[in-house]
Amino acid sequence: MNQRKSKLYWVGVVGDAGEACTPEKKRIAYQLGYALAEAGYGIITGGMGGVMEAACQGARAFAENAPCLGILPMMDRSKANPYTWAIPTPLGEMRNALVAASCDALVAIGGGAGTLSEIAFAWMYGKPILAFKVDGWSGRLAGQTLDHRRPDPIYSVESPQEVLHILEKTLLI
Amino acid sequence: MNQRKSKLYWVGVVGDAGEACTPEKKRIAYQLGYALAEAGYGIITGGMGGVMEAACQGARAFAENAPCLGILPMMDRSKANPYTWAIPTPLGEMRNALVAASCDALVAIGGGAGTLSEIAFAWMYGKPILAFKVDGWSGRLAGQTLDHRRPDPIYSVESPQEVLHILEKTLLI
Amino acid sequence: MNQRKSKLYWVGVVGDAGEACTPEKKRIAYQLGYALAEAGYGIITGGMGGVMEAACQGARAFAENAPCLGILPMMDRSKANPYTWAIPTPLGEMRNALVAASCDALVAIGGGAGTLSEIAFAWMYGKPILAFKVDGWSGRLAGQTLDHRRPDPIYSVESPQEVLHILEKTLLI
Amino acid sequence: MNQRKSKLYWVGVVGDAGEACTPEKKRIAYQLGYALAEAGYGIITGGMGGVMEAACQGARAFAENAPCLGILPMMDRSKANPYTWAIPTPLGEMRNALVAASCDALVAIGGGAGTLSEIAFAWMYGKPILAFKVDGWSGRLAGQTLDHRRPDPIYSVESPQEVLHILEKTLLI
Repeated sequence: MNQRKSKLYWVGVVGDAGEACTPEKKRIAYQLGYALAEAGYGIITGGMGGVMEAACQGARAFAENAPCLGILPMMDRSKANPYTWAIPTPLGEMRNALVAASCDALVAIGGGAGTLSEIAFAWMYGKPILAFKVDGWSGRLAGQTLDHRRPDPIYSVESPQEVLHILEKTLLI
Repeated sequence: MNQRKSKLYWVGVVGDAGEACTPEKKRIAYQLGYALAEAGYGIITGGMGGVMEAACQGARAFAENAPCLGILPMMDRSKANPYTWAIPTPLGEMRNALVAASCDALVAIGGGAGTLSEIAFAWMYGKPILAFKVDGWSGRLAGQTLDHRRPDPIYSVESPQEVLHILEKTLLI
Repeated sequence: MNQRKSKLYWVGVVGDAGEACTPEKKRIAYQLGYALAEAGYGIITGGMGGVMEAACQGARAFAENAPCLGILPMMDRSKANPYTWAIPTPLGEMRNALVAASCDALVAIGGGAGTLSEIAFAWMYGKPILAFKVDGWSGRLAGQTLDHRRPDPIYSVESPQEVLHILEKTLLI
Repeated sequence: MNQRKSKLYWVGVVGDAGEACTPEKKRIAYQLGYALAEAGYGIITGGMGGVMEAACQGARAFAENAPCLGILPMMDRSKANPYTWAIPTPLGEMRNALVAASCDALVAIGGGAGTLSEIAFAWMYGKPILAFKVDGWSGRLAGQTLDHRRPDPIYSVESPQEVLHILEKTLLI
């Protein structure tokens, strides 16, 4: 695994969960999940469908026991997608803040208000943020800053390879 | 108080906390706080400085014991602004979600990533959102929708009177 | 109000919510709520029935707008008892930790696992804890310490007057 | 792994963190961690020292990448014990509720007020609870019920083998 000094890095993957999740976004998420697992990263998502499920499915396609944590918005772990270790919480949408808090870097693929809240919290927590140039909040915020507390913009990315390249630079120095 | 059927309505007031809070934004927040207290609303903020403090100060200028709750990001209540009842929490910036959850409607005046997270949560929680046309996230989102789950846009407002008018329509029917 | 240096002190009141809440415990809670409001304290509860409702009812019997905050375990504020300002949260039973965090002192009247969790958190947060000698966890823990981090035991109390006396000593010096 | 239908079960391990954690309790925790990992369970702890660290160390002695999640009370992941995947949160002691929420069953070894809060939440969340007959809250509550909402008592256990036997019966049917 990608465990410099035996440390596992976790990459948060967020984005559209429901109908807004196009086949194109699912394909990106699947390929990203596969590439992250191959590179030795663990994956943290909100544990549900759409981008979250596709990223986990990709990671588990690389390795059956790839570390995929799904921080659920409810206590019923049977609601999780089938490709993740389910971490039930009673927090509802507030679990979005925990997804942002617990990862080492956040990657967004599209997304509505939930994804927007995750990006905002990752920004406050000082996490590197990478946003795909696709419809939704990731595309709207790619390349921008959210406020003056950080000089570094949200990285605008277009491929899993670009994500890996930036993660190498920001996490593994 | 504005307690239809003896119910007190709480209006969340959020926005710039630090240096980004211009005298102009403080003036708006103070006048809004005064107007809300006069109209019988309770006020909920994050309990700290800038817009939060000015809104509480305005409310308490109208009435010494105007209901002003400040949901703090830390356990030390002495950090609260002096014009609020302090509600300490151990949540850090995650308390932003509680500000959005606990209010009946949210009004934003400027703001950075923290305000953005509060608007995103208020959106997910289905609360009416009113945004002043000033620098910062309130101005960037005024008149817009965050995603497809709600048909109603974020109200664009320019004065406390406009806020009161919209609150009357949305809360007190 | 009991606002030394214009500060309002909040007293948390916790205990049996459901069937375990005997008429005797409700009577104690009602009298405690009345006495606290009369002495100028604000009241914080979990916002629901049983001990929580009786304490709020007592406070509002003293004054129609006595500050009674109810930190709800759900977003639907219509579930709150009718004698409190409702603060909805999405936290479920986790809101118990916020009741303990936000008060200046905690008073327990009976109670099951929920009350036990509130006492445990109040202990960790260093809040003075007062426990009535009645059936339930308040009676089981009255006069005891929970661990070695604090030298002061949980106060064992038998009347609202005794509660007021201890609060005077611990909060208002 | 112990993944009936490819599901990983998580066992929460809680107890004394600091000076109260005797060598005897650490030995129990280490052997329990080893046995749980060997049986294919994942481990969830609060990520810090004492019982938490010993359980993780035992699990990682069995397998270098044994799934050990540590839900930290702070954002600084360098504070975690070296044998766990660190999940930083901003929650302070409130993360105790998440440890109880996220596991499939909870095992307590000694413990003070923090452990007591974890047992209380696991009780409310309906999780099987197993308590070692040693000094601290696990020993005080072993064999007891916390209130009337559940008929099943907290299991009193004296060895890792007994824990495994009960987990088999309660989780893997």
